[in-house]
Amino acid sequence: MQATSPFRYSDIEVDAVYRAIRERRDIRHFRPEPLDPEVLKRLLHAAHLAPSVGFMQPWRFIRITDRSLRARLHSLVDTERQRTAHALGERRDEFMRLKVEGILDCGEILVASLMDGRERHIFGRRTLPEMDLASVACAIQNLWLAARAEGIGMGWVSLFDPAELGRLLLLPPGAKPVAILCLGHVDGFYEKPMLEQEKWAERQPLEEMLFENRWAAAPLR
Amino acid sequence: MQATSPFRYSDIEVDAVYRAIRERRDIRHFRPEPLDPEVLKRLLHAAHLAPSVGFMQPWRFIRITDRSLRARLHSLVDTERQRTAHALGERRDEFMRLKVEGILDCGEILVASLMDGRERHIFGRRTLPEMDLASVACAIQNLWLAARAEGIGMGWVSLFDPAELGRLLLLPPGAKPVAILCLGHVDGFYEKPMLEQEKWAERQPLEEMLFENRWAAAPLR
Repeated sequence: MQATSPFRYSDIEVDAVYRAIRERRDIRHFRPEPLDPEVLKRLLHAAHLAPSVGFMQPWRFIRITDRSLRARLHSLVDTERQRTAHALGERRDEFMRLKVEGILDCGEILVASLMDGRERHIFGRRTLPEMDLASVACAIQNLWLAARAEGIGMGWVSLFDPAELGRLLLLPPGAKPVAILCLGHVDGFYEKPMLEQEKWAERQPLEEMLFENRWAAAPLR
Repeated sequence: MQATSPFRYSDIEVDAVYRAIRERRDIRHFRPEPLDPEVLKRLLHAAHLAPSVGFMQPWRFIRITDRSLRARLHSLVDTERQRTAHALGERRDEFMRLKVEGILDCGEILVASLMDGRERHIFGRRTLPEMDLASVACAIQNLWLAARAEGIGMGWVSLFDPAELGRLLLLPPGAKPVAILCLGHVDGFYEKPMLEQEKWAERQPLEEMLFENRWAAAPLR
């Protein structure tokens, strides 16, 4: 039998979860108003409820409240933006026309980092040590979806040299920054992912990403 | 001003998103009934709506419908479980008492994999190539939260040798499996994370994971 689960939420609740998933966007256009501290607290709690490999909870968040430090973060990102443009070759000009971050404009900046001392955690990581990053990504996705429900925009910026950012924020050996998160009020959420709107890349059909029993088989319909 | 966002969802919708985040669990105890194919389709669509670095959409899903193949997946995982136990040393016996997967019991198995050809994607990955895994993790977290709202349990198993699993599923060079996802009906969702209930690890206070402007500063309160 394929009965509905007795643990299913009410229709309006189920729809709300799918709505947040569908309407979440990677935001680069912000209004300058600060976040309500209570909203920020709820978002961080949502992140902290993420799954983690072996329950290791490898996420750390550094809130950037110093404006001059924020400017230095922006400068690091702008340097990497130029380097990325160069590495892109023929798509260089197209890339340089994109707005890729809102670091100086948004109400709140969080840097998400992997903790130090991860080598002690073996459960679920002996053959896949990078599962710690997967856990941090799940925490960020929780934060992102909660932010969307709260009407707050978020962008994940990964255009930076992690070693340089680590030095700037005095990360201990073994820790590693993986995201500069821009959070804040917005004038609106993009209708589609911005990189799709700007024709950088297209949404691929889900059907082409599904297989049955082995990769080479016909896609699952 | 810290006004409420005009884009905020209704209270019941906001609460639903937080509820799914709070009640999601890594499930290892399943009932054998299959998933409704329409539910599975919705869950996969939710995964596909995840953010991805440079909109590269690096996730691929292999549905395991062949029971003998499922048994071989289980055998791979059991081998790694023994190796992990050995590597854990003094926590070996404690680890071996844990139920770490429900591969043979659950209604549906999906293997999530990184796609091949990722080296072509430079946007957001020049200095952090592992952002592709972060994107796949966000897709899995979407699927997980949607499943919880649908009343369906999910467990993420990372106890396997990715090269061996890749060979078993005929993954092309450059692709890499990162999760065996067990999905299915349940008799209930754990009150707390199972590894917390079983006292494998404790939930850490969020406050100890938050810093301001630099790692070494006093935790943010």
